[in-house]
Amino acid sequence: MLKIGVVGASGYSGVELTRLTLSHPRLELRLATSNSYAGQQLSEIYPQFSGLDLKLVNNDLNQLAEHCQLVFLCLPHGRSMAFAQALRDRDIPVIDLSADFRLPDREIYRQYYEVEHTSPALLSSAIYGLPELHRERIRSASLIANPGCYATGALLGLLPLFKSGLPIEDVIVDAKSGISGAGRKPAIDTSFVEAASSMTAYKVASHRHQPEIYSQLRAISQKDFLFTFTPHLAPMKRGILSTIYVKLSSSELKRDFYQLYSDFYREEPFVRLLPPDVMPRTRSVAGTNFCQINLALDKKARRLIIVTVLDNLIKGAAGQAIENLNLTRGWDETLGLTNLAPLA
Amino acid sequence: MLKIGVVGASGYSGVELTRLTLSHPRLELRLATSNSYAGQQLSEIYPQFSGLDLKLVNNDLNQLAEHCQLVFLCLPHGRSMAFAQALRDRDIPVIDLSADFRLPDREIYRQYYEVEHTSPALLSSAIYGLPELHRERIRSASLIANPGCYATGALLGLLPLFKSGLPIEDVIVDAKSGISGAGRKPAIDTSFVEAASSMTAYKVASHRHQPEIYSQLRAISQKDFLFTFTPHLAPMKRGILSTIYVKLSSSELKRDFYQLYSDFYREEPFVRLLPPDVMPRTRSVAGTNFCQINLALDKKARRLIIVTVLDNLIKGAAGQAIENLNLTRGWDETLGLTNLAPLA
Amino acid sequence: MLKIGVVGASGYSGVELTRLTLSHPRLELRLATSNSYAGQQLSEIYPQFSGLDLKLVNNDLNQLAEHCQLVFLCLPHGRSMAFAQALRDRDIPVIDLSADFRLPDREIYRQYYEVEHTSPALLSSAIYGLPELHRERIRSASLIANPGCYATGALLGLLPLFKSGLPIEDVIVDAKSGISGAGRKPAIDTSFVEAASSMTAYKVASHRHQPEIYSQLRAISQKDFLFTFTPHLAPMKRGILSTIYVKLSSSELKRDFYQLYSDFYREEPFVRLLPPDVMPRTRSVAGTNFCQINLALDKKARRLIIVTVLDNLIKGAAGQAIENLNLTRGWDETLGLTNLAPLA
Amino acid sequence: MLKIGVVGASGYSGVELTRLTLSHPRLELRLATSNSYAGQQLSEIYPQFSGLDLKLVNNDLNQLAEHCQLVFLCLPHGRSMAFAQALRDRDIPVIDLSADFRLPDREIYRQYYEVEHTSPALLSSAIYGLPELHRERIRSASLIANPGCYATGALLGLLPLFKSGLPIEDVIVDAKSGISGAGRKPAIDTSFVEAASSMTAYKVASHRHQPEIYSQLRAISQKDFLFTFTPHLAPMKRGILSTIYVKLSSSELKRDFYQLYSDFYREEPFVRLLPPDVMPRTRSVAGTNFCQINLALDKKARRLIIVTVLDNLIKGAAGQAIENLNLTRGWDETLGLTNLAPLA
Repeated sequence: MLKIGVVGASGYSGVELTRLTLSHPRLELRLATSNSYAGQQLSEIYPQFSGLDLKLVNNDLNQLAEHCQLVFLCLPHGRSMAFAQALRDRDIPVIDLSADFRLPDREIYRQYYEVEHTSPALLSSAIYGLPELHRERIRSASLIANPGCYATGALLGLLPLFKSGLPIEDVIVDAKSGISGAGRKPAIDTSFVEAASSMTAYKVASHRHQPEIYSQLRAISQKDFLFTFTPHLAPMKRGILSTIYVKLSSSELKRDFYQLYSDFYREEPFVRLLPPDVMPRTRSVAGTNFCQINLALDKKARRLIIVTVLDNLIKGAAGQAIENLNLTRGWDETLGLTNLAPLA
Repeated sequence: MLKIGVVGASGYSGVELTRLTLSHPRLELRLATSNSYAGQQLSEIYPQFSGLDLKLVNNDLNQLAEHCQLVFLCLPHGRSMAFAQALRDRDIPVIDLSADFRLPDREIYRQYYEVEHTSPALLSSAIYGLPELHRERIRSASLIANPGCYATGALLGLLPLFKSGLPIEDVIVDAKSGISGAGRKPAIDTSFVEAASSMTAYKVASHRHQPEIYSQLRAISQKDFLFTFTPHLAPMKRGILSTIYVKLSSSELKRDFYQLYSDFYREEPFVRLLPPDVMPRTRSVAGTNFCQINLALDKKARRLIIVTVLDNLIKGAAGQAIENLNLTRGWDETLGLTNLAPLA
Repeated sequence: MLKIGVVGASGYSGVELTRLTLSHPRLELRLATSNSYAGQQLSEIYPQFSGLDLKLVNNDLNQLAEHCQLVFLCLPHGRSMAFAQALRDRDIPVIDLSADFRLPDREIYRQYYEVEHTSPALLSSAIYGLPELHRERIRSASLIANPGCYATGALLGLLPLFKSGLPIEDVIVDAKSGISGAGRKPAIDTSFVEAASSMTAYKVASHRHQPEIYSQLRAISQKDFLFTFTPHLAPMKRGILSTIYVKLSSSELKRDFYQLYSDFYREEPFVRLLPPDVMPRTRSVAGTNFCQINLALDKKARRLIIVTVLDNLIKGAAGQAIENLNLTRGWDETLGLTNLAPLA
Repeated sequence: MLKIGVVGASGYSGVELTRLTLSHPRLELRLATSNSYAGQQLSEIYPQFSGLDLKLVNNDLNQLAEHCQLVFLCLPHGRSMAFAQALRDRDIPVIDLSADFRLPDREIYRQYYEVEHTSPALLSSAIYGLPELHRERIRSASLIANPGCYATGALLGLLPLFKSGLPIEDVIVDAKSGISGAGRKPAIDTSFVEAASSMTAYKVASHRHQPEIYSQLRAISQKDFLFTFTPHLAPMKRGILSTIYVKLSSSELKRDFYQLYSDFYREEPFVRLLPPDVMPRTRSVAGTNFCQINLALDKKARRLIIVTVLDNLIKGAAGQAIENLNLTRGWDETLGLTNLAPLA
C-alpha cells in the first residue's frame, strides 16, 4: 500500500480525491489536512463519510514528509507552490491540483494569477498531467501539474486535430460548467436561489484556463492561432460540456474527422467517442473519470464542431490525479477509477 | 376591448399567451382552443388557472371567424399554414407563433421542415414579427410570423452590428435553452430524471432556426457570410442564453462596440444593454418580455463576443406575440408586458 | 398615490415587495432602503431591475417619516421592533414583515427569539395580518404583523377546521419549503451544490413558527392541543407545501370536510380549494399571492390530511403585505396581486 | 463467479442493478433482458455504458434458465409473478424487485394492485428482503421479495421502536421522493418543466406501499395501530426522505431513544445513526446503499420524530437486491456496495 496525504481535503476537489483514495485498492490515506477544519472528522463536514473515522489535521509539512510517500495538493493557486517546493526538497513526489504548475512560464503565470511565481525552476520541470497527451513523461514525473477542469475538456476535444498536423488557425471553446467548479466558499452567485434555473457567461475573454489550454496546444502545433475561450455557469452540480469550433479550409472539409478521432482514442481507457450523431450529455459521465466526445461538420460554414463532456471534479480534477498517480507507479492506469455513472 | 382567439392554447406557448391575454387591459379572450383537451377547463391541465372559468374548445374555424377580431396560432409547424390561410381568407388578422411563415421562401421551408408549403403567396406577404427589426412593417401587417425563440436571441444580439454596415464574414451562435423550448409532449430526453443536472448539444449544424436567423441577417447585409448555430439543452425550465462570436478585421477592433449597442437600443422598450462587465443571466428576464445584452471584445483572437438572454416563452414567443399585436393596433407597445422578473 | 417606503429592500422579501409596489396602481415607492447597499442602484444587485432608476438609501428614520405615508419593514427579527416603535411614535402606519410582532406576548417572544422585546405595548396592539382570519381588524390597523411563510400555509390549511368548532386535539404540520425561505445571506447549506437535489429536515420540534401557528389557533379554539411542526428544505427556489395531519374522533369521520372547506373559502380571493383528488403543486402558485388547498380523509387511521401550497415570498411575505395594505386603505384587496403563475 | 440474469434491465431499477453487477467482484452478468429494447446495446439507451458490449435480449425463460444461476426480476408488478413462478419451477433462485411478493396475502394484493395473484403458494413462501429485519431467513431464501423504496425508508426508521416492544398506537410516515421513483416511462407530471422546482403530494392515504409497511410492522407488534403514509414528489433525481411521527405516552417520553437506535443499528453495515442534532440529507446517501437516520423528541406534543434518508434506486431497490444476493451466498453482505456518495 502506498501511503499518501491529501492537503486541502475539505474543498470540493480535496473531498472527491479523499473519497477516491478510500476505494483505491493500493492506497492508504495517512493524512488528510484542512486548516479550516483541523480537529474535526471529515464526516462532520460531509455526512456521506458518516461511520468513517477520518480526522482532519493541520497542513503540517513535517507530518506529511514523515508519513506519506506521495502528496496530493488541493490548495488554492498561489498557496500551492511553496508547499510543493518544500515537499520536493524532501524528495516527496507531488501531484498538484492547483494551477501553480500548469503554465509554461512565470511571466504568463504572473499575468493571469497576479502573483509572482516563487518556484520557477520547479515550474519548468513540472509535467502537465494529461495522460492522453503526456503519458510517457508522467510515468517518471515527480511533480505533476494536474490539469484544470476546463482545460481537460478543451484539450481532449482538440488533441486529435492538433496531433494530426492539420494547420489550425482559429479555435473557439464555449464551455458550460456545473456550479461545483466555483468551489465551496459560499457566495451569492453560487447560492441555490441565484444559481438555480439560470445560466450566465463569466470572465469572457479573460479566464485563467485560456493560457493553460493555449500553451499546451501551441506546444504541439508550434504555430500561433486565434483562440477564444468562454466559460459559462450552468445550473447543475457537476459536469462540463465544451462546444468547440474549429475553422477549416475548404480542402480539409473532405477529411474523415470521425475516423481521425476514432483512431486517436481507440486505446484510451477514459475517452469514448460516441457513435455518429449521438451527442454527449454531462450526466453520462457524472461521478466518473470518463470523457465522452462527438463531432459534427458544418460544411456550409466550414467548421468542425466538437463536443466533449466530463465531470469537472473527477476527470477534471481528482480522478485525473489518481490516474496520474497510477501512471507514476506503473499500475494499471484505471485502478480505482472504473465505476460508471449512476442513472442520475 | 379587442376580441381575440388563441388556437392551440394547451401547449406551452399557447398557455403563456393565454395567461398574458388575461391580464392585458385591452384584450378579451373569446376562444381558447385545443383539440386534445376540448371540453376541459384550462385549470384542469394547468392548475394555476384554478378559479378561472375558461373552457377549451375545438379548433373551429367558423367559431373563430365569428367571434374573434384577431387570432393567435400556437400550432405545430406544418399545421399552422392552412389555418392561417383560412383565417386570412375571411380577413381575420393572424399572428402565427409557428415556424410556417418565418422563412423567406418555400424552397428553404421544404428543405428544413420536410413538407411542402401550401400557402406560398401568404408566405411571401407575411411580416417577420421582430419589432426591433421590422417595427414599421408590423404596424400594418395582417399576417405576422412571430419569430422563433432562438432566432430572437440571436438576432437581437446581432442587429446593431449588421445594421451598422460593418462587413461581417463569420458568425457563430452558441445557444443554451431551457427545457420548455422542447414543448410539452412527454419524452424521455425531457423527463426530469434525464434532463436535470445535465447539458447536451443537439441538432448541431442542422437546427431549423439556422435558416431563420441567417435569412433575416442576410437581408440586412445583402452579402453571404459563414454562419453556425448550435443549440443546447440546459437544466432550467425557461430561458435562452446565446453566446455569439463575430470575427472582426484588425481595423475594426478599435471601434467602440459598447457605444454602438448602447445607441442602437437606447429607445427600445424591451432590450437592455447592461453596464460594462455585467454579464446577463437568464433568470433576470424569466417570465418577462425583456432581453438583456452585453458584449466583450477578445482582442487577441479578434472577435466580438455578444451575450443575450431572454425568456424563450415570452420574448421568444407569447410576449413578443402580444408586442406585435400592440403594434398592429397602434397601442403602447408595452401594454400588458411590463412586469419584471421575480427573484426566482 | 400613496407614498410608501420599503426598509430592507435588498433582502428577498424586500426585493419582492419592491417589485410588487412598482406595478401596484396606487402606490408610489418613495424610499427603498438598505444599509448594506446604500448608494447603489437596486439593479446592480438584482439585474432584473435594469433600466429602472431606483437608488437604495440608508435606513433613515427621518427621511422615512418625512416622505412616506406608510412603511414596510423587511428587517431581521430583533431589529424591526425599535424601527416600528419610532415610526409609530411619528404616527406612520407600519406593516412589519419580521417576526417581531407576531407572537402573543413577550415571554414567548423571548423564549423563541432569545432577545428581550423592547416594545411590549406595541406588541400587544399589533394585528396579525392574515386576512382570512383577521380581515376586519386589519382594515383599521396601524401596525400589522405580517405572518410568517410557514405560518400562513399552516393556518390557511387549519382555519376552516378550527373555526368550525370541531374539537381538535392533535395536529402535525409537515412543511417543505424552497431555499429562498432561508434568506439571501450566503451559506454552505444553501449553496447550489449542497442544496440542489437534496432534502433535509431542520429545527425539528424547535422552529420559531411553531408558537406563531399555535398561538393563532389556540386563540380560536380556546383549548390546548398537541401540535408538532416540522420544516424541511426542498431543492426549489420558492414555494411551501404543507402536509397537515389532524386526528379525528370516529364520529367526525362522517363529516363532509370538503364541503366545509369549500364553504369557508368560497368568497376568499386568494385561497382556492382544488377539485376533489387534485393535489396542489407549489409551481401552480409560484410568483403569485394564491394559496391552493385540498384534503383527503384517511378513514382507517382516523385522520384528515390537508395539503396547502403557497409562494413563501408572495402570499407568505410580500404579497400578503400588499394585501394587508390594500385592506387598510379600503381598496380592492386584490389590487396589484392578480397575476397568475407562469408555466414554470 | 456466479452467473446471473437481469430481467427488465432497461428500467431505472434494472439499469442500476446492471451497473452494480458489473463492478461486483463475484458476479458475472450473463443475460440482461428488455423486451422494449431487445437487440440494442445498453449504451444506446444509457450512454454511460459507452464502450461496454452489453446487448439486451428478449425476456426468454429458457435462455435464463440455461445460463443463469440466479435471476433478478425488474418487471412491473403483475408481470413478475408468472416469471418468478416459472423460474422457481426450474429451481432458479429469484430476487424480485417488483411488488408481487411483498404483501402478506393475496387478498391485500388484489385490493391494492387490482389484479389476482396467480402464485399464492409462492407468495406465502417468499422472504421479504430487508436484511435489517429478516437477515437470517434471507440467507436461505430462494425467492426474495425485494422491499419497496418507500417501505425501506419507513421500516428502517421504525424497526428499533417496534422491536423494542414499546406499545405503538399511532404512526405517520410523511415521505418525500425524488422523481426517479416514478419510473422511466415519459409522462407530463414527471417531465422536467412540470416537475422541476415543484412539490406535490400524491396517492394520499391510498399508496400501495402503505400495506407493505403496515404488514411488516404488524407482524412484529402483533397489534393493530393507526398508520398513515403520505408520499410526495420532490424535484430531485433520486433519494427519499421520510419524516416519521410516532405518538408516545407520557411515561415513554423519558426513554433514551437515541440510545435505543444507536444500540439497534450499531452492527448494521448500511444504517448510520447520525450524531445528535445532525439531520440527514438525501444527498449524503445518493448513489449508495446507505441509510442515514436521526431522531428528535417533541416533548410537548409527546411525539418521537424520526428522519431517514436513502437512495430509492440503491438501498431502496438495486443495492438492497445485491445485498440480499450476498446474504444468500454467504458472502460479505457489503460486497460491491461500499462506495460512498460523491459530493453532488
